[in-house]
Amino acid sequence: MSFGHKHILGIEHLSREDIFQILDTAAGFKEINTRAIKKVPTLRGRTIINLFFEASTRTRTSFEIAGKRLSADTVNISASSSSVVKGETLEDTARNIEAMHPDIIVMRHGASGAPHYLAERLNCAIVNAGDGAHEHPSQALLDLFTIREKKGSLEGLKVAIVGDIAHSRVARSNLYALTRVGAEVRLAGPGTMVPPGIEKLGAEVHHDINDAIRDADVVMMLRIQLERQGKTLLPSLREFSRFYGLNQDNLKLARPDALVMHPGPMNRGVEIASSVADGPQNVILDQVENGVAVRMALLYLVAGGEAAEES
Amino acid sequence: MSFGHKHILGIEHLSREDIFQILDTAAGFKEINTRAIKKVPTLRGRTIINLFFEASTRTRTSFEIAGKRLSADTVNISASSSSVVKGETLEDTARNIEAMHPDIIVMRHGASGAPHYLAERLNCAIVNAGDGAHEHPSQALLDLFTIREKKGSLEGLKVAIVGDIAHSRVARSNLYALTRVGAEVRLAGPGTMVPPGIEKLGAEVHHDINDAIRDADVVMMLRIQLERQGKTLLPSLREFSRFYGLNQDNLKLARPDALVMHPGPMNRGVEIASSVADGPQNVILDQVENGVAVRMALLYLVAGGEAAEES
Amino acid sequence: MSFGHKHILGIEHLSREDIFQILDTAAGFKEINTRAIKKVPTLRGRTIINLFFEASTRTRTSFEIAGKRLSADTVNISASSSSVVKGETLEDTARNIEAMHPDIIVMRHGASGAPHYLAERLNCAIVNAGDGAHEHPSQALLDLFTIREKKGSLEGLKVAIVGDIAHSRVARSNLYALTRVGAEVRLAGPGTMVPPGIEKLGAEVHHDINDAIRDADVVMMLRIQLERQGKTLLPSLREFSRFYGLNQDNLKLARPDALVMHPGPMNRGVEIASSVADGPQNVILDQVENGVAVRMALLYLVAGGEAAEES
Repeated sequence: MSFGHKHILGIEHLSREDIFQILDTAAGFKEINTRAIKKVPTLRGRTIINLFFEASTRTRTSFEIAGKRLSADTVNISASSSSVVKGETLEDTARNIEAMHPDIIVMRHGASGAPHYLAERLNCAIVNAGDGAHEHPSQALLDLFTIREKKGSLEGLKVAIVGDIAHSRVARSNLYALTRVGAEVRLAGPGTMVPPGIEKLGAEVHHDINDAIRDADVVMMLRIQLERQGKTLLPSLREFSRFYGLNQDNLKLARPDALVMHPGPMNRGVEIASSVADGPQNVILDQVENGVAVRMALLYLVAGGEAAEES
Repeated sequence: MSFGHKHILGIEHLSREDIFQILDTAAGFKEINTRAIKKVPTLRGRTIINLFFEASTRTRTSFEIAGKRLSADTVNISASSSSVVKGETLEDTARNIEAMHPDIIVMRHGASGAPHYLAERLNCAIVNAGDGAHEHPSQALLDLFTIREKKGSLEGLKVAIVGDIAHSRVARSNLYALTRVGAEVRLAGPGTMVPPGIEKLGAEVHHDINDAIRDADVVMMLRIQLERQGKTLLPSLREFSRFYGLNQDNLKLARPDALVMHPGPMNRGVEIASSVADGPQNVILDQVENGVAVRMALLYLVAGGEAAEES
Repeated sequence: MSFGHKHILGIEHLSREDIFQILDTAAGFKEINTRAIKKVPTLRGRTIINLFFEASTRTRTSFEIAGKRLSADTVNISASSSSVVKGETLEDTARNIEAMHPDIIVMRHGASGAPHYLAERLNCAIVNAGDGAHEHPSQALLDLFTIREKKGSLEGLKVAIVGDIAHSRVARSNLYALTRVGAEVRLAGPGTMVPPGIEKLGAEVHHDINDAIRDADVVMMLRIQLERQGKTLLPSLREFSRFYGLNQDNLKLARPDALVMHPGPMNRGVEIASSVADGPQNVILDQVENGVAVRMALLYLVAGGEAAEES
């Protein structure tokens, strides 16, 4: 079955069927990553450019490994060494890269909408690896993959997402993805960190973390961006941690088999207690592991591969 | 037919025959870049080191892609992470790299003559990816490739090169290359930007851009290096743009089918008006596209490959 | 014969037999590096991550080339772009990388013991590429390889190691390695640069370079880290050079066929005179060349390869 999207710009425009096609395709790739020879010839001779205008070890590495395991040639371009510093426009930078005939540009950019802007102007496939506070679709897909793997299905699950919702592309992409597959999403954070009107996207909004966590099947903590402290973290980091951090006490409110998730990198002792991060309910490293398989699926699908049949 | 050069240090020492061998070899490689599987096994098992003492996204990426499409292993070394910062001499740095048995070192350096200095001391092949204000041979070759592709031949064409001639390795390499193949070169720029005596290399020198552009077959604009502003840009950027920028008005002086070229990255609204950069006469992205094929040819030839017969 | 170590953390815990297994395995790989096709399929489909928390051109490049010549996929992560800057713990960073199923993590870190700390916590193989002032095992092994290659054997050789012993992981790893294979080690440096009690590890300690060099078969100079000057370099760089630098005069005290070695990058005119660095006794570039072969052996062995029979 062919996949109906040339780009992966965000979850917003993916259907339930699209999402399951991706997850099912990723399931087929997951096994490759545990072999001795972790490689298939699927994208041999294709060129994938990782164009990162914001630093990111984990996402760039995950996409780079995904590309290499599909036998593609991968080329990294980081903003610090890019022509952007020389005053070139984003479109010119991207068109120049496109002129070298990459098959896929994986891009991260600090401005919301940057990949969409380029997708309208370029011919090659674009995979959004995070744009501003907008979307981070591969993260949401690996989160769904992990939840489905652990829980068997996604429909009807209660998922709490806690922290700085307003500035989180992870939260936004997960909100789109989870509601699309029939999960119930509860957002929790201080008033300054929850954007007004977000409940219109289908989420419950809470300002008390306990209300969000209670009976949840999944508790997804967001990273507090310490560099933003003093701007939106009122009144202090310590108070944020006290009122919105996940710890062994408030985790008891969730279902006993609730999953604890975090997109990383974690600030231990801030948004998540170490005992919880390392506790039996955490699936944080499963998320990272599944990330490679999900990104293999995305690269494969936008390169024209056949999607797996829906399971 | 074997290629008579071990290194590509500059155009100055290439003959007309050398240049056409390279262009013809590149023509054979260009087609590979548009295939689904953009790769040939030509340089499998060879090691190419991109040794960049100056940042450059586009040139490094182009060489890296060229190497990978020839199936070589490519390793990037950038100055910021190099031993140079630790007080090692350039020769020691290069000899150390050579001791690891690379087949080719592609190097960019801020000092004119740096690749020549190393070529005299090292055994492995060196390709100059830009040395100071001296030469940038792969750029001139991709420019000639693009002109020949669009115009059918090079001989007798009138080519205007406009801007900061004195500090431009692109201008210098193109001047050598274009005169060698029988094109007529006109240089234009303010007095502070045209080095005295350059007409001895076979170019007409103009201080009025209109005189250079008139009846030209090709108008090649140089990038204004904004970081030099205040030193040589007299009296101001705005006046530079007004007197030496290419726009729809002065472009009318050129032949109606004149090509508009720019080595990138462009400062839109400074040396080139956006309407011209995006206009029907521009071949700027063709230059970038052809750059990969030309660099594949250079890597292939210095690695001992057979040159194509002159067409 | 299988190799008994999952990690290469340091020389301290390697036996004489381990060391010779590595050297003999490296000897088999050395020849590959001089072929036209410098590549064997040994580690095809394996993933090697070079995780460098300290900048190092030469070591990272050497490991990267070693990995590629074994046909492994190599991924570079440097501290400047890593999550460490975002406040993540070292263990979390490493566990995240491990979750992507690399086969080997090659790591350099400024803290002594960092690779050992991770080896206790992670499942994948770890190769120490230098930890603080502690160990740099691949450097000592390539030094032994070079000495054995030139001298035929290691037993009974007199090896002088001169310079800032206290801060040198190269000195420490060589001290372990050389004493283990039966060489006689003499350390020389000013009092501030020789750690008290180091003679207990089996070395003679000298404060006069002449006493260390006299009749030596090998003179190994250490790099003076200029950035430390003013802290431990008493009273001045010039005096250090005068009293502890190797030059044509004091080199005459060594055996006429003594080898001159340096781990690089060299400060010519400081710890080593240029005439000596370029003189007939120097094997400095042999060290670099052999480094690739030794690192191929290490990667091969920790990936589960069979060790060569002891020669």
